[in-house]
Amino acid sequence: MHGELKKLAITNSKKITLLVMDGLGGLPMEPGGPTELEAASTPNLDRLAAEGMVGLHVPIAPGITPGSGPAHLALFSYDPLEFEIGRGALETVGVGFPLGPDDVAARGNFCTVDENGLIVDRRAGRIPTEECARLTEKLSRIELPGVETFVMPVKEYRFALVLRGKGLHPEIADTDPQQVGKAPLQAQALTPEAKHTTDLVNMWIEKARKILEDEHPANMVTLRGFSGDPNLPKLQDIYKLNPAAIAVYPMYRGVARLVGMDLLDAGKTWDDEVAALEANWADYDFFFIHMKYTDSRGEDGDFDAKVKIIEQVDASIPRILALKPTVLIVTGDHSTPAKLRSHSWHPVPVLFWGENVRPDDVTVFGERACAHGGLGIVLARTLLPWAMGYAQKLEKFGA
Amino acid sequence: MHGELKKLAITNSKKITLLVMDGLGGLPMEPGGPTELEAASTPNLDRLAAEGMVGLHVPIAPGITPGSGPAHLALFSYDPLEFEIGRGALETVGVGFPLGPDDVAARGNFCTVDENGLIVDRRAGRIPTEECARLTEKLSRIELPGVETFVMPVKEYRFALVLRGKGLHPEIADTDPQQVGKAPLQAQALTPEAKHTTDLVNMWIEKARKILEDEHPANMVTLRGFSGDPNLPKLQDIYKLNPAAIAVYPMYRGVARLVGMDLLDAGKTWDDEVAALEANWADYDFFFIHMKYTDSRGEDGDFDAKVKIIEQVDASIPRILALKPTVLIVTGDHSTPAKLRSHSWHPVPVLFWGENVRPDDVTVFGERACAHGGLGIVLARTLLPWAMGYAQKLEKFGA
Repeated sequence: MHGELKKLAITNSKKITLLVMDGLGGLPMEPGGPTELEAASTPNLDRLAAEGMVGLHVPIAPGITPGSGPAHLALFSYDPLEFEIGRGALETVGVGFPLGPDDVAARGNFCTVDENGLIVDRRAGRIPTEECARLTEKLSRIELPGVETFVMPVKEYRFALVLRGKGLHPEIADTDPQQVGKAPLQAQALTPEAKHTTDLVNMWIEKARKILEDEHPANMVTLRGFSGDPNLPKLQDIYKLNPAAIAVYPMYRGVARLVGMDLLDAGKTWDDEVAALEANWADYDFFFIHMKYTDSRGEDGDFDAKVKIIEQVDASIPRILALKPTVLIVTGDHSTPAKLRSHSWHPVPVLFWGENVRPDDVTVFGERACAHGGLGIVLARTLLPWAMGYAQKLEKFGA
Repeated sequence: MHGELKKLAITNSKKITLLVMDGLGGLPMEPGGPTELEAASTPNLDRLAAEGMVGLHVPIAPGITPGSGPAHLALFSYDPLEFEIGRGALETVGVGFPLGPDDVAARGNFCTVDENGLIVDRRAGRIPTEECARLTEKLSRIELPGVETFVMPVKEYRFALVLRGKGLHPEIADTDPQQVGKAPLQAQALTPEAKHTTDLVNMWIEKARKILEDEHPANMVTLRGFSGDPNLPKLQDIYKLNPAAIAVYPMYRGVARLVGMDLLDAGKTWDDEVAALEANWADYDFFFIHMKYTDSRGEDGDFDAKVKIIEQVDASIPRILALKPTVLIVTGDHSTPAKLRSHSWHPVPVLFWGENVRPDDVTVFGERACAHGGLGIVLARTLLPWAMGYAQKLEKFGA
């Protein structure tokens, strides 16, 4: 659909805000009970549901549990079955690195190996991010023949590695053996074309090993998710939007960057994020604002804590409404029911609010209620085109 | 979607049961009245609806009335517009014949012709199946140059014919003139490639005519639905399921076989079928169990009799629940409203029940209620992927 939408998209002064509570969708803990969202006291979201329109979205396809990357791509209107992004590219872009067509990116983990080179801790005791920064600074000095290298700290034991040069190929297997008691693997080429790049990667690993051998606990590295620039069409090109992202976690910043969003300084707390929305309101016409902890508490299996996060977001709604968004969408990227302690395939509640949104007769924001909404049960990648319509940013199709 | 699902499918111990009441969907006989399902007293199905999630499915596409073959293919997640199965192949596989790549299959009818060779009864007085078996045994002795032939009794006047040999082609027109007072047609090739196969078929028909000429009433045959092995991907390959079918009628057994299901001994009555489910419960992780008579009574135009069949199935639900299925789907393959006395294009009620099914607020199982369900109104071929999700048999898509 992007091709058709591109022909119709126009720029106007109306603003779209997409508020994503990660892993919003839930399940009752016991038969007959409420979901997390149904249990939460959400007077503001309920008011928006009453004034606006609700529904459910299917992130990827029936029955499929999405990872965070594909789920966000879908929210940004990209078919995740068509557009795949490697983990290395996500992580790298997430820390603000401008990934380009000559780059191969990998996600790196610092780990601890014993005197025989066998892994004893795959996460090097979760070293603090400051220690990660000190070590990546040392690794940045590694030189390889014919290519540039970049090493960036991500968070705790995680870093990102980029090789930049002509003719590089990312089809390289992970070096993380995924268990302790084994040595990190040699990088292995998955295609003949990737042989040269693989040799460079192994050279880099060997130099890193020497640099780190006197460190503790981070005395070795593993690499995974080798990937190139996915070269996604940008929201600017498809929709003529001027989009910005407010998200704390690197991976969500990464997806947002890959579709063309400016990455705003999101601070650390939800209040910081809303403040960033306020501070930058005049400068963009599309905002993606991301709350991570609904998902985290769902993965913890902590129903009540997830309820509290939802209530925290609900309490911030008046501040967002005060900015007078033309269209406000509140949803999740996928479900993370506390009952399952993991992402799940269940459809996700979604709410559209704005002056041109046609109201349905649903008056609360919750999974059961959303099944009756005016939006219906739709694929996630249709939400942004709907928002474009509600913001009157699409011209008439045909005469 | 099969390609993507294949990458994600895993095997676990959870069990999916797909209960199909053939032709379940109905219509009110008079304005304001109930449908067959709404009129039926279904305390067990209503309880499942209250605890689970309901919706409607569209078997093939909007407005299209399905035959039983395509409707079942869709329930098994195959797009019936992409995968076509000839009637000959269906019937042949339905009687347990292992159809292969070198085979051309046809459905045969015994008929009665007069002394001029004109058909006076297209079904040979609906001879009993035993008589059919005696006659097909005689026809099995026919020999043709360069090919093997197989003749199997199906039911009453119906039999199946298979020619096996290299280079055979199934593009051959039916020989049934579809009316009495005419002679059976010669087989005609529909493509140049099928000329040789057509000659063999006509040779076989002539030999059959001679063998049957002193029989009565079954003194001639007609052939139709010439078709080869449709070579469908199997549920084992796509979903890593170990599937079994419990169905009495050959044609449903045929579709089930073609998608890879083991055909269990289903007995004769619905009680026998449920007993087969119980007896084989430990050995499979997917069961298709089929009730034919909802459709038959619909085709009779007998509203009350169709209601009674639905109530009979409802009464068996506690036996099925006692087996503790992880996911139970109750639906039909298409609608057969008694009012229309035929299959129809109307969407079909569907019910999902199981521990991870998110409840909606519908509390009865009926067409009107299902329109408000948490599943929405979906294509039939999405049901099995949803079931795979609910049974946690699909890994996460992407990171």
